[in-house]
Parts: sequence; structure tokens; C-alpha cells
Amino acid sequence: MPAQARYDVVGLGNAIVDVIARADDDFLVLHDLRKGGMTLIDEARARSLYAAMGQTTVVSGGSAANTIIGLASLGRSAAFIGKVKADELGEMFAHDIRAANVAFSTAPAGDGASSARCLIVVTPDGQRTMSTYLGACQNLCVDDIDAEMVADSRVVYLEGYLWDPPAAKDAFRKASRIARAAGRETALSLSDAFCVDRYRDEFLEFMRSGGAQVIFANESELHSLYETADFATALAALKAEGVLGVVTRSEKGCVVVRGDAVVEVDAFPVESVVDTTGAGDLFAAGFLAGYTQGRALGDCARLGALAAAEIIQHIGARPQTDLRRLAGQNGLAA
Amino acid sequence: MPAQARYDVVGLGNAIVDVIARADDDFLVLHDLRKGGMTLIDEARARSLYAAMGQTTVVSGGSAANTIIGLASLGRSAAFIGKVKADELGEMFAHDIRAANVAFSTAPAGDGASSARCLIVVTPDGQRTMSTYLGACQNLCVDDIDAEMVADSRVVYLEGYLWDPPAAKDAFRKASRIARAAGRETALSLSDAFCVDRYRDEFLEFMRSGGAQVIFANESELHSLYETADFATALAALKAEGVLGVVTRSEKGCVVVRGDAVVEVDAFPVESVVDTTGAGDLFAAGFLAGYTQGRALGDCARLGALAAAEIIQHIGARPQTDLRRLAGQNGLAA
Repeated sequence: MPAQARYDVVGLGNAIVDVIARADDDFLVLHDLRKGGMTLIDEARARSLYAAMGQTTVVSGGSAANTIIGLASLGRSAAFIGKVKADELGEMFAHDIRAANVAFSTAPAGDGASSARCLIVVTPDGQRTMSTYLGACQNLCVDDIDAEMVADSRVVYLEGYLWDPPAAKDAFRKASRIARAAGRETALSLSDAFCVDRYRDEFLEFMRSGGAQVIFANESELHSLYETADFATALAALKAEGVLGVVTRSEKGCVVVRGDAVVEVDAFPVESVVDTTGAGDLFAAGFLAGYTQGRALGDCARLGALAAAEIIQHIGARPQTDLRRLAGQNGLAA
Repeated sequence: MPAQARYDVVGLGNAIVDVIARADDDFLVLHDLRKGGMTLIDEARARSLYAAMGQTTVVSGGSAANTIIGLASLGRSAAFIGKVKADELGEMFAHDIRAANVAFSTAPAGDGASSARCLIVVTPDGQRTMSTYLGACQNLCVDDIDAEMVADSRVVYLEGYLWDPPAAKDAFRKASRIARAAGRETALSLSDAFCVDRYRDEFLEFMRSGGAQVIFANESELHSLYETADFATALAALKAEGVLGVVTRSEKGCVVVRGDAVVEVDAFPVESVVDTTGAGDLFAAGFLAGYTQGRALGDCARLGALAAAEIIQHIGARPQTDLRRLAGQNGLAA
């Protein structure tokens, strides 16, 4: 773990507000939505899909932003870089992330596309299906990268979704270069199996050229990365990369690999799954909270499992509980 | 119960979006908020209070609107009249109420104050404390009353809060007159003890002159109406009015009075109280669902208790469950 730093983790990601409604599986079929996935949509589609959705709950979201909020709730110092427009949803995103004591100073866009929104349909099994209108996120550029902030963070956390807005990709690479030059680590979340499918070669090249030392993936993202349906094959390939690999497997728990070391940790038991949105994001938050404290990989994974369990038991991908207190109650206090 | 009608209930109320955050009691003291109450605030106060609040969840609200949504969820035909501005929050309110199959056609304001928002602080005991910026609601006027819609509804449901925006008061009275002329009933919710304190004489005059035949109140509102701290005294005064009086008493259940008839029904047991916002609104929804079907007062009250129990077990004042199905599961199917 790198030396002293002002922030434990700085996250770089799409700044998105989630618009969540419940619906049956029939709704997914009717509106041609790929269950469990994330699909990019344009503004017209965002309007028509929203019109078809039922009563919504609106909560700030964004994959890396959720992770950063989780880290702050676990008592870690955290910062975020992401782009909103100066509109109502953008103000809401900025309010919510600052209310969590996260440093957030990316200038909002004064004009152009409105702030991003993710239309999330939650089916009765708790699974979430996401349709994202990127809007203002497409304006994130290299000038938005606060070099000092990045260099002063132990870990730079990048979401793979940032590969979607073209200009953001350059910002993403710039942040990784700054981190490397400052002797910091970069973590990359693979975000979504179809996102991996869109950028497989670039992700592999980024990782193999030393752009990221820590990789977060779920099972299907890992399968997509190595184009295999066999978990053992995919895991062996990840081990061979020489990175710290953190693979979540929903109710089957997680596997952490580093060189020849393999650590498996069970999922944290939950009473009922209400909404899986943010499960992976919060797992990463818990894991990185432990990691930036230099804790054993098993404890990092257990913290991840605990934070993920909290988030799937309610609507929305932002914690409703003080996660540090929850960790203490479950024998995982720092 | 009046004869056949297109709508079971048309609600008239402030069209508000709720902005909800959790906080400790210390926050209430620090920001001079009256626990459990509803305070009107101006735009500057709305901004400063919002800035001080933590991570928020945004859900459409409004007292009568919540009741109307509850009625629709219970399978009743319902309509709503209320004023938003054509802005993001206003669009959200309109989307959500229409998504619930409620007829809503009040024209949004094109300019002027922005759509109303209610900043709600939920303390660890589940109690909600509300600060309302009325904004565009102040533009509701007599011209917004769709006479045909009102005349074609079995019950017109009015929230006492509508007495706050001055022009709305006239709209409120117009709706009651139309209902009366059409042989319909008007129900009035007293909304809040301090609201009653502001308009006690007008509420009493409205009721006693035949403006409302059904009164919904909680214990503190009833105490405020009759300026007494003794429940038996207040209830006796309500009985003497000759209206159908429906009084909710939180965990003590409710009392329904009509002339000499008194019906008491227990609260519906809940596992844990998460957020009491909307408890009274949804009680009224359940009660009116039964009432407009001509059911016995005890069954009306039981439906009210069931709907209130659903709403207090999650964040926000809009049902997250199909209330008709829930009623069926609890032996209260129509």
C-alpha cells in the first residue's frame, strides 16, 4: 500500500442520477430490455422509456460514485471526479456526494446535454436492468482531472463505464498516468459484461501495460473478458495477469486472487433481496476500505460482502446505514 | 354513498415532490425544526436547509396526492387536481401520478415559482419533520377546477394544507360547491395541528356550513381543532358536528364516529417503523377505498390501517406494493 495520502481513494466515473421503478419481467420484454444489463440510450429513448415506467424513486447513483460514497460511509477519506450539468439533477448529484463528505469539485457544464440519468427497472426477484442516458457525462475531459487530487490519493478507482463517453477515456488514462507517476495504485472495475465486450482489447491492453494493478469484476464480466464460459479457466487467466483480482459471484460469495494466493469469502446472509443495484459498487467500497487500511485480503472481502448486503436490501445504490457502525457490529471494525 | 360516477375520488391538493433525508434529533434542534410538524418555508430557507441535509431520496408526494395514489393502488378510479411548474420536479410529479393511472390534467405553470418541494427529515424513531416550499402550488386557482371532473366523482377529497396558498382556498371552496350541487360528498383532511391552528375558525365554518361531510384528523389535529388536550372531550365535540369523523391515533389505532355510532379499530401490526411520512394520507386512502364501495365502517378503517402500515415500513409516502393484492392477502378483498 502506498505511503500517506490526503485521500484514501479518488473515484473517476459517470455522474448519474438513478430513476428507479418496479416492474414485472413482461415490462422488460415489451420494451426490449436486456435483464440485468446496462444499455446506453439516447434522449428520445430515455423520454419514451421513462413515460412507460411506473412511479419512480430518484436517488443519486453512478457506479464509481456509489463506491466512493460507500468508502466515505466506512470512514475513509474519499474524492470524486465526474461531470454533471448545472441543472436540477446535476445539483442533486453534487449535493448528495458532498453531503457524504466526499471532495467533489468537477466544474458542472453550463450548457449542452442535461445531467445523466439511469432508468432502472427492478423486477420482483430484485434484479436491476439499467438504461443509461449519458448526457453531460460526455463532457468529462482531461482538463477535469485534478492532478493534485489524483496524486494525493492512495488508490485511483476507475469504472469501466467511463470508456463509453469518448472524451472521458482520455481523462481516465491521464488519471492512471498521474497515479503511476506518484507511486499510487489504480483499480479498474469492469462494470458490465457488455461493456467488457465493447472494450475488451482496450481493457486488456490497459491492464497489461500497467494501467491498473487491481481489477474488480463479477463472474460474467470475467467470462466476457476472457471469452470463456468456464469460471476456472477465467480465474486462471486473471491469476496469470499478475494483478490483484477481486471477483464477485453474487450469492456464491467472492474470490480474491494475487499471484498464487486465492482467498474465498462467502456472501453475507440477507433476509430478502429488494434491489441489487449497486451490489458490485458497494462490494468494491468495502474491499477498498479494508485495502487502504492494509488489512488482510480476507477481511477486505468480508467488508465488501457486508457493504453489498446492506445495499441490496433496499431501493437505491447509496447506503442507508452508517457502514462503519455496521462493520463494527459485525466484528469488522478497523 | 352517491350514485354512479366516473371517479370514485377526486383529490385536490398541493402538488409536491418529497426530498427525504435521515438525520438525528440534533439536526432538528440545530436547524430549529419542529419535530413531527410541517412548516412553510421560503426559497432561501429551502436552499440552506437542503444544503445542510444529507443524501436524499426524491419521491413524489403531497398529502392528497398520496391518498389518491393509494386509492388507485387499491383499484379505485381516481383523479387529482394540483399545480406544478413545467420544470424537472413538476414533470416528475406528473409522470408519477399518471403512471399510477390517476387522471391528472391540471395545466402546469409556464413561469413563476418552481415546483413545490417538501424537505423531510426522518429521525431514527421513524418520525418525519417537514419543511415545505410551496412554489408553484401558489398558482392553483379557481380556473384549475375541472367542474365536470368534480361533479363526476363520488367523493371530493380536500387537504387542509390547501388553505395555505391564498388562491387555492377559493379553488377549494369552488370544488366543494360543485360537489354539493351534484349531490356528491366532500371529505376534508385536517392535515396538521399547526395548519388547524392557522385556520381553525375557517375549517369549523366550512364544516358546519355543509362544506364537508367527512372529516379526517389525527389526535393532535382534533385536539387543535377543539382547543383541548383531552381526547374524550375532542371526540365528543366531533360527534356533535353530525359529520362522519375518522380519527387516527398512530399505534393506538383509530376511532370512527357517525352520530352515536363509534367504531374502534386497532393499528395493523408492523415489524419496524422506517418512515411515518404519508401514514395519515394512506389511512385516508384505505378508508375511502372501502367507503366508496359502500363497505362497513369497520372494514373501511381496517383497509386504512393496512395501507398506513405498508407506507410506514419504507422511505417515501407512495406505496411500493400493490395495495389491492395486499388487501386480498389480509382478508380485506372487496
